[in-house]
Amino acid sequence: MSEQPRSIIAGAESDRADLVAATTAAAAAFGSYRATTPEQRGAFLDSVADEIEADKVAIVEAAVAESHLPEPRLAGEVGRTTGQLRMFAGVVRRGDHLGVRIDPALPDRAPLPRAEIRQRHVALGPVAVFGASNFPLAFSTAGGDTASALAAGCPVVVKGHPAHPRTGFLVARAIGRAVEKHGLPPGTFSFLLEVDGQRGIDLGQKLVADPRIKAVGFTGSRGGGLALVAAAAARPEPIPVYAEMSSINPVVVLPGALGGDVAALATAYVGSLTLGSGQFCTNPGLLFLPRGEAGDAFLAAAAAAVREAAGAPMLTPAIAAAYASGTERLRGAEGVRVIAEGSGADGAPAPQLVEAAALGAPVTDEVFGASGVVVRYDDVDDLLPHLESLEGQLTATVHATDRDAPAARALLPVLELRVGRILFNGWPTGVEVGHAMVHGGPFPATSDSRGTSVGSLAIERFQRPVAYQDVPADVLPEAVRDDNPWGLVRRIDGELQLP
Amino acid sequence: MSEQPRSIIAGAESDRADLVAATTAAAAAFGSYRATTPEQRGAFLDSVADEIEADKVAIVEAAVAESHLPEPRLAGEVGRTTGQLRMFAGVVRRGDHLGVRIDPALPDRAPLPRAEIRQRHVALGPVAVFGASNFPLAFSTAGGDTASALAAGCPVVVKGHPAHPRTGFLVARAIGRAVEKHGLPPGTFSFLLEVDGQRGIDLGQKLVADPRIKAVGFTGSRGGGLALVAAAAARPEPIPVYAEMSSINPVVVLPGALGGDVAALATAYVGSLTLGSGQFCTNPGLLFLPRGEAGDAFLAAAAAAVREAAGAPMLTPAIAAAYASGTERLRGAEGVRVIAEGSGADGAPAPQLVEAAALGAPVTDEVFGASGVVVRYDDVDDLLPHLESLEGQLTATVHATDRDAPAARALLPVLELRVGRILFNGWPTGVEVGHAMVHGGPFPATSDSRGTSVGSLAIERFQRPVAYQDVPADVLPEAVRDDNPWGLVRRIDGELQLP
Repeated sequence: MSEQPRSIIAGAESDRADLVAATTAAAAAFGSYRATTPEQRGAFLDSVADEIEADKVAIVEAAVAESHLPEPRLAGEVGRTTGQLRMFAGVVRRGDHLGVRIDPALPDRAPLPRAEIRQRHVALGPVAVFGASNFPLAFSTAGGDTASALAAGCPVVVKGHPAHPRTGFLVARAIGRAVEKHGLPPGTFSFLLEVDGQRGIDLGQKLVADPRIKAVGFTGSRGGGLALVAAAAARPEPIPVYAEMSSINPVVVLPGALGGDVAALATAYVGSLTLGSGQFCTNPGLLFLPRGEAGDAFLAAAAAAVREAAGAPMLTPAIAAAYASGTERLRGAEGVRVIAEGSGADGAPAPQLVEAAALGAPVTDEVFGASGVVVRYDDVDDLLPHLESLEGQLTATVHATDRDAPAARALLPVLELRVGRILFNGWPTGVEVGHAMVHGGPFPATSDSRGTSVGSLAIERFQRPVAYQDVPADVLPEAVRDDNPWGLVRRIDGELQLP
Repeated sequence: MSEQPRSIIAGAESDRADLVAATTAAAAAFGSYRATTPEQRGAFLDSVADEIEADKVAIVEAAVAESHLPEPRLAGEVGRTTGQLRMFAGVVRRGDHLGVRIDPALPDRAPLPRAEIRQRHVALGPVAVFGASNFPLAFSTAGGDTASALAAGCPVVVKGHPAHPRTGFLVARAIGRAVEKHGLPPGTFSFLLEVDGQRGIDLGQKLVADPRIKAVGFTGSRGGGLALVAAAAARPEPIPVYAEMSSINPVVVLPGALGGDVAALATAYVGSLTLGSGQFCTNPGLLFLPRGEAGDAFLAAAAAAVREAAGAPMLTPAIAAAYASGTERLRGAEGVRVIAEGSGADGAPAPQLVEAAALGAPVTDEVFGASGVVVRYDDVDDLLPHLESLEGQLTATVHATDRDAPAARALLPVLELRVGRILFNGWPTGVEVGHAMVHGGPFPATSDSRGTSVGSLAIERFQRPVAYQDVPADVLPEAVRDDNPWGLVRRIDGELQLP
């Protein structure tokens, strides 16, 4: 029997003692974990991916049972999760996130000489991660927040999502094996679990309030995110909270886009709207459609597609109940009329499409699920005030052809200030993991628009800069040494230099 | 008489109407100001510097009268201010802050093609700036926060500091002329003023609460900074607050550093401690000194230098009063004994040096002014727990020789987690404006350790990323076009490419 201490991986309810043990272990692990070289940290992240793949069958089986999502979708999500981990392994090995800058000394400068100053980013400290209900893998235990925090050099304490406790446990156990394999301190990763709703909320609040936690990643509801933001603001020491919360992801159909196969466009829209029962943060919940015959044809085709759509079981009874009350509130709002409804069943509520005469609550409140609102408009002058009235969003989609270019150019600056990602002639569901992706946006899409929770830029959320002035060469950290042992891109006297 | 609307530059008390006018104008200016090209924005920042230089004599005269700081110091501060503006002009012209990333489309990727995704940073929106009492120029109306926010493309509303209203007004007027000269919207820059203490605090709170303000820069006291952090957290839409607040800037003298000219070292320390009556955020308020004969000799020499030092008039009566009460509280603390006192006068309180047997409040509370605390230690094992007990700091200084390298290497990781800048064999007062500088640090040195308020990295505090997916070439913003018209450094598929 091994005497080596292991990561805290809770298989059942965690209590206050587990929480303190996890954050204490994370704080103890921080020093040696952040001191890992790019190669060591990259190899560890690769191992996390390998260990998850090794348990893929069991993980997918648990996730199917717990989330009601289809097997192919969850098998794909494993690939997305491991791909993300391997992408961060590459980022860390290249070391770009270290952001090295060197201003050489100018001993002869008048009237005063200039000291030598070097800069690099260091990790913030232990990070608390709250996974999402709708992505039990890619936005959860080993999801983007965990991967980017670990890549930055931060130990992670995950509060497992109560909607998929066994999936979370299995993934956490895989991460724990990678921690052990690389001889990292056990506090590098911990997993806490509490399936009871209120006790889970309490555990989350205590985790964010714990003084050893230095940043928070969250994906979920606006209420849940704002509660964590408030808990963080109430700490003696404020910490960043990256909460990805709510978005209705407006879609603008410009007139030219109705010049082609309107029925195909409408069907594709409904496909995105009803995908996964609409349980995506990027679900296109609001669509602006030109008035007139072509728009009418689009709406008729969309209505037909919605009528043919069947609701799939939602992730949890609570989400199904929230969908029911949200759609009821929406249908009861002034100026809202129901265009079409699909078929539903118990726990698998019907998709719906409504038309609204005007914006504002509850029309612009997120209804998590396959509920679409259509707003008709006359021309771009009519459209812009609508867009300007919207809150912050994760995405905005524009359907346009060449002849819409002037209108599209007028929309772009308005959308830029309201969303994290602008996409043309596609659908917002499906968030590519890459270097240029932004999955974020102004409040209330997120609590902090300066970051992204998907893509390699996500690592920057968990770092801060430190300057080293006239530090002797044999004391300097490797990242900022003149001989550049890690082959980093560096900014020398303001100019970027490739290694 | 010109009909052109002018920037709001208050020469006397501003009221609620001025505030709303300023933030409304800032919001109205945002669209066209952020759309300026790198060259246009760079030229504007250069003009701000030129206009300040044109009024240099009057500005320095006002600043001398209002701050009691010596003329050469303030003349130098004008140079620092204009140099900073010109540095940001260069940063903007090069466009590195745009952080362009392009992930090309992969139409043949299996199982799904990859969309083309581009990314750049956009400005957050109007920024409220609160200047410092102790740097009426370089950390005030046209200081680092204003320069970096304008460089990022954010309109700025300054709340002028009540300790130097005329200086602020003259600088604001110079900025206003540059705004006019470049045909920018008047709301690009506004200056509000309220010299009454309580009314000024109210004005500041209202400014931070104004929904048109999207970020805050502040330099000042911990109380003032935390009040603005609380005001921002109480908004329906939370916004970033970059408050640079308090720091006692620990200095560690390692044994080897006492092997040379101990008296010269002690005199240099007292020079930094008493510079500008100690009214620097980087004032070295806490010094760790080895026990033993060499340490005794250092302390004796430092005591002699303090006894010879005379207090200069402090910036304001309130600051002098806070120094008096702070030093009194320190002297009354358990285990604190006074080592030396300089000469003082009304409004020019005496510098002091005390020795403390242990750390903790009030010994580690910032006393803004020339008050130094010395703590003796036996060896590095004795020193580390002291350093680990400290709150976040702007700087940490180490005095060491080659033979101290092992100890210095042991200190470095501890200091990295507690400070924004680590310097060796110098003094923390004097913050170089450059590309590698960090003037920031963990709480309570600042409210947000992810940024710096000095140096070119400061621009990143006022930006957020936006992604463009499959946006047609003739709709794309210039910054992310394939032909790279601005000659930017770009990250293509994850790899940095120089233009």
